[in-house]
Amino acid sequence: MLKRSKKTVAMLATAAVVLSVPAYAATTGPTVQSQENQAKNVIMIIPDGMSLPATTIARYMLDGNENGQTKLNMSNYYVGRVKTTWAGGPITDSAPAGTAYAVGHKSTSGALGVDATLTPKATVLEAAQQAGKSVGLIATSEFMHATPAAFSAHDKARGNYAAIAEQMLNQNIDVLLGTGATKVPAATLDILATVEAKGYTVVDDRTELLATDATKLWGNFSNFLNDKGNMSYDIDRDPDKEPSLAEMTQKAIDVLKNDEDGFFLMVEGSKIDWAAHANDTIGILSDTLAADEAFKVAVDFAKKDGNTVVVSATDHGNSGITLGHYDLTGYDSAPFSILAPLREATKTAEGAMALFNTEKSNVNDVLRAYGIEPEGYQPADAASSDRTTKNNAKVNALIETFKSTKASGDLVKIMNQLAYIGYTTGGHTGEDVAIYAYTPAGISKAPLKGLHENTDVANFMASVMGLNLAQATADLFVEVTDREGATIADNTLTLTENGKTLILKANQSTATVDGASVDLQGEVAVAINNRFYVPQSALDLLQ
Amino acid sequence: MLKRSKKTVAMLATAAVVLSVPAYAATTGPTVQSQENQAKNVIMIIPDGMSLPATTIARYMLDGNENGQTKLNMSNYYVGRVKTTWAGGPITDSAPAGTAYAVGHKSTSGALGVDATLTPKATVLEAAQQAGKSVGLIATSEFMHATPAAFSAHDKARGNYAAIAEQMLNQNIDVLLGTGATKVPAATLDILATVEAKGYTVVDDRTELLATDATKLWGNFSNFLNDKGNMSYDIDRDPDKEPSLAEMTQKAIDVLKNDEDGFFLMVEGSKIDWAAHANDTIGILSDTLAADEAFKVAVDFAKKDGNTVVVSATDHGNSGITLGHYDLTGYDSAPFSILAPLREATKTAEGAMALFNTEKSNVNDVLRAYGIEPEGYQPADAASSDRTTKNNAKVNALIETFKSTKASGDLVKIMNQLAYIGYTTGGHTGEDVAIYAYTPAGISKAPLKGLHENTDVANFMASVMGLNLAQATADLFVEVTDREGATIADNTLTLTENGKTLILKANQSTATVDGASVDLQGEVAVAINNRFYVPQSALDLLQ
Repeated sequence: MLKRSKKTVAMLATAAVVLSVPAYAATTGPTVQSQENQAKNVIMIIPDGMSLPATTIARYMLDGNENGQTKLNMSNYYVGRVKTTWAGGPITDSAPAGTAYAVGHKSTSGALGVDATLTPKATVLEAAQQAGKSVGLIATSEFMHATPAAFSAHDKARGNYAAIAEQMLNQNIDVLLGTGATKVPAATLDILATVEAKGYTVVDDRTELLATDATKLWGNFSNFLNDKGNMSYDIDRDPDKEPSLAEMTQKAIDVLKNDEDGFFLMVEGSKIDWAAHANDTIGILSDTLAADEAFKVAVDFAKKDGNTVVVSATDHGNSGITLGHYDLTGYDSAPFSILAPLREATKTAEGAMALFNTEKSNVNDVLRAYGIEPEGYQPADAASSDRTTKNNAKVNALIETFKSTKASGDLVKIMNQLAYIGYTTGGHTGEDVAIYAYTPAGISKAPLKGLHENTDVANFMASVMGLNLAQATADLFVEVTDREGATIADNTLTLTENGKTLILKANQSTATVDGASVDLQGEVAVAINNRFYVPQSALDLLQ
Repeated sequence: MLKRSKKTVAMLATAAVVLSVPAYAATTGPTVQSQENQAKNVIMIIPDGMSLPATTIARYMLDGNENGQTKLNMSNYYVGRVKTTWAGGPITDSAPAGTAYAVGHKSTSGALGVDATLTPKATVLEAAQQAGKSVGLIATSEFMHATPAAFSAHDKARGNYAAIAEQMLNQNIDVLLGTGATKVPAATLDILATVEAKGYTVVDDRTELLATDATKLWGNFSNFLNDKGNMSYDIDRDPDKEPSLAEMTQKAIDVLKNDEDGFFLMVEGSKIDWAAHANDTIGILSDTLAADEAFKVAVDFAKKDGNTVVVSATDHGNSGITLGHYDLTGYDSAPFSILAPLREATKTAEGAMALFNTEKSNVNDVLRAYGIEPEGYQPADAASSDRTTKNNAKVNALIETFKSTKASGDLVKIMNQLAYIGYTTGGHTGEDVAIYAYTPAGISKAPLKGLHENTDVANFMASVMGLNLAQATADLFVEVTDREGATIADNTLTLTENGKTLILKANQSTATVDGASVDLQGEVAVAINNRFYVPQSALDLLQ
C-alpha cells in the first residue's frame, strides 16, 4: 500500500528525550511517551449517540438473558467518562464531537477537523499516516458522514459532501468500509470512478468482502432498501448482502495488521444515533449490540496481538432513553418481563415500515415485524396490576393511531409505551458519556479513568502511539492565503517561489510543479473559510 | 464507646493464611485478603437516586462555571458502573438497593438487610462492629428511611418504622446523624427517650454539632419547616440551624477516626431521590452538590489518613433527567446560557412553596425564589432563534398555570421547560449507575472497574476491611424458630436449654437469662416473616 515517509517519526524519537509532560496532556510540544508506554496500533469504536441507558437495556436483549445477567462485551472495559461539550455550548453535534476525538480541539457546530477558529488540525488518523502506519475507517452511514469525516477531512460545514468525499478519497486511507457512493451527484464527483482511480478494490457485498485478499479496500454495500446510501440496521440486514459491523472490523484488522509500522482504525456504529433521533428503541438496541460485537472483535485481536489499544466512547448522548417512564407505576415491583416485548421485534421501525405494500393495506404485518400484536393487548387479569391494565389501554389506543396514520413516529410510540421505555427528546443530550478502554500489559496506567474532556481522547490515542498531533498539523496545514507570490482562484492555489510555480487544488493530493504532476502521497490541500492550507511537502517542491 | 469483642477478628486473621479467592469475590468462606490489600476504614457515600446526567448538569451550577469547565469532586474518582437490579426485576426500590450495598445479596421490593428469601444477613456495618470498629450512619431523611436502615436493620418491610428504629437504636451505632424523632408515634416508641437511655449525646443544631466533643452522637436536626421529620435540601437550609452533609461527614470522621480498630461510615444524600421523584431540578442539583462536598471531605481525610477507602455510588437512577428535551430545537447551536435559569433559583420547589402566605397571594415571591420571572419571558428578538421564541411562549403558559393552581408539580415544570431539562418519569429508572472510588496506595488494584453487580460493592467493602459477611451472618442471626425448647409469643423468644432460660424480645439487644439482664453489646434479635433470629452470643449464655 502507498506510504508516507517516516521522517516525522524519526524527528519525534529524537525529541522524546528532551521534554517531560504528562502522558496524555495536550501535545503542544514533541511527543514524550517512553517506548514502554506506547502501543503500535489503536482501534477506536464509536457507537454514535449511544446514551448509557441504551447499554443497560441492550443487555436484556441478549439470548436467554431475560434477567440481564450477561454483560455486554464492552462493559468489562468501562474505565471513565467523557464530557461532550463543543466550543460554544453544552450539547454537541456529531461534527465537533468527532472532531474532538480526532484532533483534540473543541470546535463549532457542523465543523470537521478544525478548531473553534476553523483552522485545520491534523487528525489522529493523519498523524498515524505521517508515522507510516496504515489506517482505516468504517461506518454504517455514508462514508462522508460527520464521524468518519471528522477523522479524515477538514471543512467548516459537514454538509459539504463533495469536498469532504474528495478529501477522504484522496487521502490514501487503506480500508474504507461502508457505503455512500450515491450521496454526491456523479456530475459533481463520480465517487466510484474516483475510488477506482485511486487504486481501491471495491467490494459490493459481504461475500466479496470476506473473500478478498486486496490490501486497499473500499466498501460499497447496499442496504435492504437499496437506495438509502447508508447500511441497514443490524437486525434488518440481509446477511448474504451486507456484512455486520463486527465482520467489517475483523476484515479491516486483517488487512491493516500486516503493516509493520502499525495501524489506526476508527469504527463507527453510525445509526444508533439515527434510531435515537427517531426514538426507535429497536434500532438503538440492534446497533448497540452490533457495535458491542465489533468491540469484541477489536479486543480479541488486541489481546492476541499484545501491542494494540482499544478505546470506545460515544460522541454524545441522544434521546434521553430510560428503562422506565411515567406510566410505569409500581416500578419497584415490576418483573423483568416488562422488557419482553422488545425481544418480540424482528425489525427496526425503518425495517418494519419498509414492509408496507403500495396500498399500505398490510399494517398488521408491519406491526408484527415490530413486535406488536395487531389486535392489541388485553386488560390485565385480576392477579395482575392495575398498572398493566392502564398501560395496555394506552398501548391499544396507540395501535389504533398507527393503523390510521401509518407513520413511523407513531409505530415507535407503541413499543415505547408497551415496554416502558422513556424518552426526553428527539435530539442530542448533554450528559457525560462512558469510555471503555483495553490496554495491553505494557501500558501500566489505567487510561482515561475519571472524567475527561472529549479532546483528551484524541491526545491519549496520539500519545499512546507516540504521535504528535501539533507537529502533524504543522506538517500538513501550512497557511498560504496571504503568502507572497500566492494567488487563489477557483479553489486553486498558484504559488511562485524560487522561480518555480506550484499549482494545487483544494481537496486534492496531486500538485503540479512547473507543469509536472507530483503525488503528495495522500497529503491534501484544504480551503476553509476563505483561507488556504497546503502540506509542507508541497512547499518543499519549490526549494 | 461501647465495643463488641474482637474474637471474630482474631479468628479471621488465622483463617486468612489458608484460602485463596479473588479479592472481592462473594465472601462465602473466611476472609482472604492479604494485609497489604486491606484498609482500616471505609466510607461509603450514597447520593440516593442520582442519575448520571444530574452530575453533568450540577457542574454548570458551580460558581463561575457557566461553561462547565470545573468538575465535581467525585468526577476524578469515577471507576466503573453498577447494575442496580433487585431479585425480581430491573428497577429497584431503595430498600433492596441499599440492602445489596449493605449485605451483598439481592433482595425483594421493600425488604431491608435480608436476602430474597427474607433471611437476615449481616451488613458491612455489623461486620465492622464485630471486628471492633466504630460505625456511623448519616442521612438527610429520617434515620429509619430505606438506605440507612438497610445498613443496620433487618425487616421484610421498609415501612415498619418502629421496629426498624428500635433495631437501629439498640445497635450501638456510634454516630447517627440526621433527624426523624417525630416519625414514630411516641406511644409506640419514644425515640428521644430511647436515644438518651442508650447513652447518646443528642445534638439539636449545627452549632451543637460542631461544638460537641461527645463520642456517641445522635443528630436531631430540624428542617426549616420544622415538622417534616427530614432535613432541608441544602439550598433551603438555614446554616445556623442545620449542618451541611459535608459538615456532618466531617464530624462523624472526627469522632470515628479515634478508634484504633478503624471505622465504617455510610453517608446518604437522601433527598436527591425525593427531588427526582418530584422532577424538581433545583432540588436534584442542590443535593447532588451537597453530596459531592461530603465526598470531598471523605477523600480529603482518606488521603491524609492513608488507610481509608472511599466508595460512592447511587443506589439506582431516578426520573430520567437529561440536559435537553423535545423543545430544544437547534440543540447543537444552543449556547451554554440555556442553563442560566437554573442558577437564578435560590430555593428548591419545597423551599419556594413554603414561602406561600396563608392566602397564597404572594405567588410572585414563590416564582422568584424558584428562579422564575413572574411576568414571564419575552419572545426572542430577531437575532435569537425561533426556538427561544417558541419555548418562551410555552414557559409563559406554564407560569400562568402555576399562578392558577399554585401546585408544586406545576412550579417545577416551568423551570424544566425554561432550562431545557427533560424527564421521562417520576419514578426510579433501571440504567446502570456510576461508581466512584478512592483507594490508598497500598491497595494496588483499581477496584470496581468495569461493570459490577450492586452486591459486589458490599463484598468489596467487606473484603477491603478484611471482614467476612457470611461469618458475621452466622454469628448474628441464628434461627431459633423451630428450636427445641423455644417458644415465641408476643414477638419474644423464650428458650430453655441446659436448665437455663433465655428471654429475648425482637429488635432488642438486652436478654434476660434466668431473670438476670445481659447486654448483648448491640447485637439485636430480629423477627422476620414469622421466623426468629438471635445472635450466637445470646445462645452462648445458655452454655
